Amino acid sequence: MDGAAVTKPVGKPFDRITDLVRDDMNRVDMILTQQLNSSTDLIPKVAAHLIAAGGKRVRPVLTLASARLCGYEGPDAVRLAAAVEFIHTATLLHDDVVDGSTTRRGRPAANRLWGNKPTILVGDFLFSRAFQLMVETGSVEVLRILSTASAVIAEGEVMQLATANNLATTEADHLAVIRAKTAALFAAATEVSGALSEAGAERTEALRIYGDCLGIAFQLADDALDYAGDAGATGKELGDDFREGKVTAPILNAYAAARDDEERAFWKRVIEKNDQQNGDLERAVKLMRRDRAVEQTLDDARRYGVQAKAALAVFPASALRDDLQGLVDYVVERDR
Amino acid sequence: MDGAAVTKPVGKPFDRITDLVRDDMNRVDMILTQQLNSSTDLIPKVAAHLIAAGGKRVRPVLTLASARLCGYEGPDAVRLAAAVEFIHTATLLHDDVVDGSTTRRGRPAANRLWGNKPTILVGDFLFSRAFQLMVETGSVEVLRILSTASAVIAEGEVMQLATANNLATTEADHLAVIRAKTAALFAAATEVSGALSEAGAERTEALRIYGDCLGIAFQLADDALDYAGDAGATGKELGDDFREGKVTAPILNAYAAARDDEERAFWKRVIEKNDQQNGDLERAVKLMRRDRAVEQTLDDARRYGVQAKAALAVFPASALRDDLQGLVDYVVERDR
Repeated sequence: MDGAAVTKPVGKPFDRITDLVRDDMNRVDMILTQQLNSSTDLIPKVAAHLIAAGGKRVRPVLTLASARLCGYEGPDAVRLAAAVEFIHTATLLHDDVVDGSTTRRGRPAANRLWGNKPTILVGDFLFSRAFQLMVETGSVEVLRILSTASAVIAEGEVMQLATANNLATTEADHLAVIRAKTAALFAAATEVSGALSEAGAERTEALRIYGDCLGIAFQLADDALDYAGDAGATGKELGDDFREGKVTAPILNAYAAARDDEERAFWKRVIEKNDQQNGDLERAVKLMRRDRAVEQTLDDARRYGVQAKAALAVFPASALRDDLQGLVDYVVERDR
Repeated sequence: MDGAAVTKPVGKPFDRITDLVRDDMNRVDMILTQQLNSSTDLIPKVAAHLIAAGGKRVRPVLTLASARLCGYEGPDAVRLAAAVEFIHTATLLHDDVVDGSTTRRGRPAANRLWGNKPTILVGDFLFSRAFQLMVETGSVEVLRILSTASAVIAEGEVMQLATANNLATTEADHLAVIRAKTAALFAAATEVSGALSEAGAERTEALRIYGDCLGIAFQLADDALDYAGDAGATGKELGDDFREGKVTAPILNAYAAARDDEERAFWKRVIEKNDQQNGDLERAVKLMRRDRAVEQTLDDARRYGVQAKAALAVFPASALRDDLQGLVDYVVERDR
């Protein structure tokens, strides 16, 4: 596993947080590698392909930083951070099969290299390993938080099947999907550290709210980036969501702002029928600009960001608290 | 959910055991139904399709009977039995996607009715729900046993990908796959009840061995049934494994007994290349009869059956213990 991946900068507050928990993150990486050991070498191959690609490791860093914020000094935070990363990796592997993805983190998706079968089964394996790691902490509360999050994530994925390519999706439905698919694991990643640290109900709940709101802001910003990001930096093509006909926040905003039947027919054709021609993405981006559809998405993200930051007020002021609050702004304003 | 499915007879000892735990099994069915509730109706639809089809419910009955054998009288055995059934159902859903199955329990497989996406995701959901049910028992030991079993099952499935269509698979490799894919959940289903009942290390280990050996015997008998069963009764076509080119115990026995290169070439063509013509299944069955390939598989199953029965000797004699031992014979000698 490439230790350098951990240090990949995603903004200054995140860099400082990552620096603070670097020793622990090295232990997390060791656990991730050890736990992939198996009597069959296909498991470490498929899993390491994705895990070694690095990604931003935001979730395990959040778990470690939350434990630090609660003054936790025991050995279990690294296990939980590894469990959180395994759950995340398992959902990515299953997502790639469900979406028929071709790339992930700038590399060919696992399903393209090894086929759907190993990709599904290695996802199941990682998911089980995550629970084995949680068991090692001996905390039933930790297991409660993360098993609930896992059920909510799967529910969110199923909900998304129903909203995909459907412009009748309401903003509330879309928020519910985002919250389940993305924010549930952020919220669990921070809440478990409160539970592990026995930080008390108020602080544990504050961490949960922080993760939940940060996760929503993160996903809304992600939706926005598909229409306004720097393609080279995100490692995914601009307009990927568009080409899939994915109903995301900018699309819903643009569709709601459509001025006539012709514009509505355009959105229905490209999104609901997913029937796209040359120039359609350009027209979509143009309409979005005119109606500030992406800006509106980012405004929503900022609103959740404000709530995330406010939640941490129950903790005493510290450099780490400042950085966790600063991270919120970075997540919303990033260009990748 | 059809309560009648639970009472479907699979042999006299199993009938008596099922009768004994009938009230608890009704509670298990209630939990299974309640836990499928979700904000999205696709989850209960996909899951109930499979769960309501009934199957033999062997695993949850084993969990309840094992708890009874340990004198357990608390409320948590039904939760564990439901968790075990959810894990089993989740693995069946993922299996059906991985194998591209067309039928399951005599009905169209979920992936045929709803496609691969919901089938994968509902499997993930059931798996998470299983862990939530375990968390309700408050027992970390229970969570340890079942999370380990889940990892072993996924590993077994991946191992099977490597042995499928491969006649160089050794008997030991094949046994390892069977043990991981099938016996691990049987063993966990019985062992958890020992842990829940705080029955002590010796009895808990005895229950684990009983489940492990029963599971191996069950799978070997299943392998045999594909070439010698009553197709109407099993709810699957005779020769299903053959048509898939699945390397099972009777195939390995028949291949080892092949008398010349022509026979070995036959097995390689039909299994490794999975290139089959009219009359091939008949020839395979004929060769198996000549070389007692199915009988040998059943002899192996009986040997594991003897070990399963012997393991229960640490429990005082009782009608239930007799029935659990009698169940072993039924599992091996059944014709479906």
